[in-house]
Amino acid sequence: MNRQEIPDIIISRLPIYLRALRHIKAEGKQTTSSQELGSRVGISAAQIRKDLSQFGEFGKQGTGYDITFLIEQLREILKVKRVWEVVVVGMGDMGHALARYQGFSDRGFRVAMVFDNDPAKIGSQAGNFIVRDMKEIVPTLNRSEIKIAMVCVPASAAQEVTNKLVEAGVKAILNYAPISLSTPQGVKVQYLDPSIGLQRMTYYLE
Amino acid sequence: MNRQEIPDIIISRLPIYLRALRHIKAEGKQTTSSQELGSRVGISAAQIRKDLSQFGEFGKQGTGYDITFLIEQLREILKVKRVWEVVVVGMGDMGHALARYQGFSDRGFRVAMVFDNDPAKIGSQAGNFIVRDMKEIVPTLNRSEIKIAMVCVPASAAQEVTNKLVEAGVKAILNYAPISLSTPQGVKVQYLDPSIGLQRMTYYLE
Repeated sequence: MNRQEIPDIIISRLPIYLRALRHIKAEGKQTTSSQELGSRVGISAAQIRKDLSQFGEFGKQGTGYDITFLIEQLREILKVKRVWEVVVVGMGDMGHALARYQGFSDRGFRVAMVFDNDPAKIGSQAGNFIVRDMKEIVPTLNRSEIKIAMVCVPASAAQEVTNKLVEAGVKAILNYAPISLSTPQGVKVQYLDPSIGLQRMTYYLE
Repeated sequence: MNRQEIPDIIISRLPIYLRALRHIKAEGKQTTSSQELGSRVGISAAQIRKDLSQFGEFGKQGTGYDITFLIEQLREILKVKRVWEVVVVGMGDMGHALARYQGFSDRGFRVAMVFDNDPAKIGSQAGNFIVRDMKEIVPTLNRSEIKIAMVCVPASAAQEVTNKLVEAGVKAILNYAPISLSTPQGVKVQYLDPSIGLQRMTYYLE
């Protein structure tokens, strides 16, 4: 199957497999099975085998998957063998937390710059960064190779910020603002709205 | 269709419709169409009509959906007409950000307590809260009606914290820790790992 044709739902599960494989490896194991991996991530062994088979033959009947090899293959497929520089826009609590977040370093990402439009914040320190002026974001990013941004501004400002990011060449946006964003084809958005996450569960509560 | 049989994928889209409807309402509109709603959320009009039809007949041919009515119906279905009290476990940067987050109040949630196991943090102030001792969480929650928790501890501590939360009667966990959690049937987990969100997009980048 051409990689362009692989359904997004399969792509969206690969990072979860990768994360679980790294945890299993950290426990000292060298091989795993689709059953073991499945029980870690709450996905059926059959689904995992089917997902991975889209990209090649990674496991051996009887011996299972070589964990290090499968990790490297998934990193290759997901293009996270390199380190992607990322900008954070919006230096409220969430933006600050992301600017200081320690969990990106071995997952393929590094915060490179942070921006805000508040004169009281511009020039101040946030984690290891000096907050830059949002007015400079388009020329600054156009001079860089940065293609990924995290948006932590209020909902009312998020679309305007997104338009600037698109103008600046950003192709992937992780959106913490509680609003759906409109982007041109070729610009991906992933959403991390805690209220949405909670509302997806209350339906099931007594 | 019996509500128990409605696929989770449909339930997972309802909060997104609800959020978009509230934004459309805030713009002063009184009715909307599946086309307009679809263009806001990046989901086809046909899909939206099909999803909503699982729960009843909310729109009228020709006049579309009454926004206020549909909002109230979705709030009813998702059980967010009430306010759910939520606990935050782990008072690092992300836990602090959630303790101070202003976006829950009109979405059905209210942070009620925050916990940590670090003696240096227990008893200190986080937002409007005094950080409680993790050792007290089971009896404290057993005395309360709280069924929802947000987990912001390191990956290495997340499963142990989850086990405590299950023991304490929690039925829904929003997990910020970068690890898949194992929970008994009847305990839901939603994941907000920023690296997973980013890795879901890098596949598509040049």
